[in-house]
Amino acid sequence: MKLYGDRNSGNCYKVQLLMSLCDIPHEWIPVDILANETHTPDFLAKNPVGQIPLLELDDGRVLSESNAILHYLAAGTPYWPDDHYHRAQVLQWQGFEQYSHEPYIAVARFIRHYLDLPEEREAEYEAKQAGGYRALDVMEQHLASHPWFVGGQCSIADISLFAYTHVAHQGGFDLAAYPAIRSWIERVESMPGYSRMGT
Amino acid sequence: MKLYGDRNSGNCYKVQLLMSLCDIPHEWIPVDILANETHTPDFLAKNPVGQIPLLELDDGRVLSESNAILHYLAAGTPYWPDDHYHRAQVLQWQGFEQYSHEPYIAVARFIRHYLDLPEEREAEYEAKQAGGYRALDVMEQHLASHPWFVGGQCSIADISLFAYTHVAHQGGFDLAAYPAIRSWIERVESMPGYSRMGT
Repeated sequence: MKLYGDRNSGNCYKVQLLMSLCDIPHEWIPVDILANETHTPDFLAKNPVGQIPLLELDDGRVLSESNAILHYLAAGTPYWPDDHYHRAQVLQWQGFEQYSHEPYIAVARFIRHYLDLPEEREAEYEAKQAGGYRALDVMEQHLASHPWFVGGQCSIADISLFAYTHVAHQGGFDLAAYPAIRSWIERVESMPGYSRMGT
Repeated sequence: MKLYGDRNSGNCYKVQLLMSLCDIPHEWIPVDILANETHTPDFLAKNPVGQIPLLELDDGRVLSESNAILHYLAAGTPYWPDDHYHRAQVLQWQGFEQYSHEPYIAVARFIRHYLDLPEEREAEYEAKQAGGYRALDVMEQHLASHPWFVGGQCSIADISLFAYTHVAHQGGFDLAAYPAIRSWIERVESMPGYSRMGT
């Protein structure tokens, strides 16, 4: 399998982290977002949406969208639960991540960390803060009484949410008031097979 | 089962349409978004994110996020494929819908159709058009050579994408240049058990 990705992208890191935790062999193909390599004709032929991560199977079939790739790879591992309701809860938290978390925390991080907070995007950056903190509030409320997001053990829901949460400070978010989130981050980081973002 | 929703919301309609196609008995509990009924203390106790649709099972457990609810309900029906790669493709298209389609087409529709295009949101409305047409382009490209999004038959990927696409004109999007999308809309509308939005 080939994984097309950018080492600084949290969406790509989700897949990389699952592959590391489960020791899934793959070839990493670097794609530079800032150099617009997601919009070359060759790349758009693989993914018309022009996004990474992109998984290419050995037979040439491809799969995009981080959460779909996680679902494909996690089958048969402890990161995809057996229970039907728990599975739906995993998708619920992944939907929350893509709709109510990533568009605020990841985009704020992109503007500040990738682009160095240019003046013309300052207003957008500031506008992302409230939504990001709302997402962190929801996570903190859940994690205050649960060690993991679903079913008492680490699942791909945690992996999806971990990716941008553990680097939220790069988007200007202060986790000081979120002790349950900070404990959860430490739990993920201490798992066997854990690999750091950017490596 | 109880389904909390708003008849004008495409995200709620996704679930309603699947329930109609599969003849799944349920009680509909109306929740008025514009009256802020998704943010009452009672509702936030069920879903801290403050969003509909929300499914409440007979034992009181709840599930939010439209695509997670669809996944929960579609198990064992033809709308959730058997093949593992096809399942991941369903999630891929649902991820595309929530990240690259809904934030443009549904939000433009909300501003124009719910709020009657107030002057202070005109710039935001206009800014949504390009992203909405990009999403429609991706759909048209796929549907030009496939009758359905995944595996040759209607799945919950189609249901997710249908909800806001078939009312895209209410967000100012013209489907005249999208013949494959228009044919696909007709295919969905002619399915046994189809129910119209808003009914």
